Amino acid sequence: MSWRADILTLFPEAFPGPLGLSLAGRGLNDGKWALAATDIRGFALDRHRSVDDTPAGGGAGMVMRADVLARAIDAIAPEGDPRPRLLMSPRGVPLTQQAVRALAAGPGVVVVCGRFEGVDQRVIEARALQEVSIGDYVLSGGEIAAMALLDACVRLIPGVMGNAESGTEESFSSGLLEYPQYTRPQLFEGRGIPEVVTSGDHAKVAAWRKAEAERLTKARRPDLFAAYVAGNA
Amino acid sequence: MSWRADILTLFPEAFPGPLGLSLAGRGLNDGKWALAATDIRGFALDRHRSVDDTPAGGGAGMVMRADVLARAIDAIAPEGDPRPRLLMSPRGVPLTQQAVRALAAGPGVVVVCGRFEGVDQRVIEARALQEVSIGDYVLSGGEIAAMALLDACVRLIPGVMGNAESGTEESFSSGLLEYPQYTRPQLFEGRGIPEVVTSGDHAKVAAWRKAEAERLTKARRPDLFAAYVAGNA
Repeated sequence: MSWRADILTLFPEAFPGPLGLSLAGRGLNDGKWALAATDIRGFALDRHRSVDDTPAGGGAGMVMRADVLARAIDAIAPEGDPRPRLLMSPRGVPLTQQAVRALAAGPGVVVVCGRFEGVDQRVIEARALQEVSIGDYVLSGGEIAAMALLDACVRLIPGVMGNAESGTEESFSSGLLEYPQYTRPQLFEGRGIPEVVTSGDHAKVAAWRKAEAERLTKARRPDLFAAYVAGNA
Repeated sequence: MSWRADILTLFPEAFPGPLGLSLAGRGLNDGKWALAATDIRGFALDRHRSVDDTPAGGGAGMVMRADVLARAIDAIAPEGDPRPRLLMSPRGVPLTQQAVRALAAGPGVVVVCGRFEGVDQRVIEARALQEVSIGDYVLSGGEIAAMALLDACVRLIPGVMGNAESGTEESFSSGLLEYPQYTRPQLFEGRGIPEVVTSGDHAKVAAWRKAEAERLTKARRPDLFAAYVAGNA
């Protein structure tokens, strides 16, 4: 059985979208993973196919109804489905590469793209939805967030990426940001490649890259650098 | 002149993709913002249309060539173009809602979707590309990251979202995660809406929501909560 993603969304036509291109798309076509997007609106209970209503207690925006979403979840991922049920939400736990690795190693995911203004809290609790955030910014909906999560997972599924693509993952795993990269031409607008990089001395290259990665991480991401130092202490 | 996004990518067919749907898509059709995706490969110099090459100094993956990307940037955003030039990259500065607000208030953006394994450092420096990360996970490319950035920006452009959608933004601006939301039906699988929320006492509702937002933020995002406490001290 291949890794399978089910998306619950008000915009099923958004999928596969960018996930249908490049190596992720080839993997999808080759059956290395599977994707289905289901319209939550198909589970509405009234003839207007309402999926949301005004917030209890007042306030801006609309809130997704617990009953409609619960019906959709129960149809797509009934009890016993081993996949985690995620809700893309700016108030979720921040997505990390470590979480991506765990998801990619499992049977797949069920991802709810709720209205970003809110989903009735009761369905989050009743269906044990795990709220996941892709970053500290607000999107118009969960669809692009779901795409980011899936893209990150899918590239780790065996056979999706070529071996040549594995470098980035290993680099990120070190807890440091990527060192500067260079390629041909040797000279670009008068700018050369640092001599040590083309020296052919592998140990020196490795030492330079590590030092640059540490310098960059310290400057840009003191939070990551502190964790890296603590981990190596 | 409307807010304009130019995307430089190896997969121009990915755009507008999900950005063509929902309110962002309507805004695009209505000319509230503009989007163009340009194929970097069109600026290759050889008959094989090469855009990348092996990393100087060795290593996995491929690195995007400085000369090809520079030509693409110079064609799409020549000197004097007032828009910031962003490079989506896992080693970039983390995107925040504050940065999104600043970008949305400007003339638009030029976004480079590089190979995620790397872009020759010299073009990053020579063209003053600002590296931006949407989160601490690795994607297969910059395209979905660019979509996330654009979606976040576009929803803040006047006329794109209805007034009813403005709630989330204000909430996030408070520095706290969103409080729990509820809507009809009053009873869902035996679960009611908290009494205070439907009490009709606006002051009590507001106090409950603030307390819940604080509780949730403290539990899920001690980092945000610390900043919130410091900001209110």
